[in-house]
Amino acid sequence: MTERSVVHATFVIDRVYEATPARVFRAFSNSEIRHRWFVRSENWPRAEYSYDFRVGGQERGDFSPDGKMNIINETTYWDIVPDARIIFAYAMYIDGNRISVSVATVEIKPDPKGAKLTYTEQGAFLDGYDFPAQREQGCRELYDLHLAKELAREDAAA
Amino acid sequence: MTERSVVHATFVIDRVYEATPARVFRAFSNSEIRHRWFVRSENWPRAEYSYDFRVGGQERGDFSPDGKMNIINETTYWDIVPDARIIFAYAMYIDGNRISVSVATVEIKPDPKGAKLTYTEQGAFLDGYDFPAQREQGCRELYDLHLAKELAREDAAA
Repeated sequence: MTERSVVHATFVIDRVYEATPARVFRAFSNSEIRHRWFVRSENWPRAEYSYDFRVGGQERGDFSPDGKMNIINETTYWDIVPDARIIFAYAMYIDGNRISVSVATVEIKPDPKGAKLTYTEQGAFLDGYDFPAQREQGCRELYDLHLAKELAREDAAA
Repeated sequence: MTERSVVHATFVIDRVYEATPARVFRAFSNSEIRHRWFVRSENWPRAEYSYDFRVGGQERGDFSPDGKMNIINETTYWDIVPDARIIFAYAMYIDGNRISVSVATVEIKPDPKGAKLTYTEQGAFLDGYDFPAQREQGCRELYDLHLAKELAREDAAA
């Protein structure tokens, strides 16, 4: 059996987008848009995904970056304030091992340039499988790169 | 509409019990014992309660301390390591307002006196309805008073 351990950590990511709060919120609430930047942005060979965006609803992704390693993301939505706030709890699994359980808050506020998103993750990182710095790096890619690209894409299409 | 706000906070409560780790864990895993110290200890006039202690299982309490104010606790269990660790996410509601969403870790470790329980709550406290210090106080009563009393009771009965 693995040595059991828990590292608790909180990290915060701020990002301003040139988009209205409503458009940033829609990138979460619209399943097609969410799927594009959250699931398909990495072009992984396997990505099974289901999404039910409502309080009490669940999101589940079953991914493999290389056809071998298995990554599972299980999310439950706990709080949704349209155009303003989303709170979800999620667990991550790698190759069947539960590596973390977190609560994450997405706050969206008007900003002179458009909208400011603040992502706060409060996580329990388990048994040495994952570390806060690594998770923060992954989340930064998600918001700085993939969501930014998605909102620029929508902007170009508008 | 209420002014929207989020206060993120983490607090930790340590407590040593004169009981084995297995007995402390059983106070969570056994629904009859859990019901006694978690639900009925306050002798509130209304306490509806359901409990399904397994990974993915839910716990729900619908309480009233005075027959007027309504308190709802909704919990999902995310991680269970027998005799050692329990991680759950939970939301609290007062009179229909969601006041918090938290992830909580209970770690149980052997101690020279019996078992040391470490409770770590990482919470998002919402819209000014609740505050970390108040929640911490409530949790301290739960572990310092009610669970301690329950374990002493079991000890006397043994």
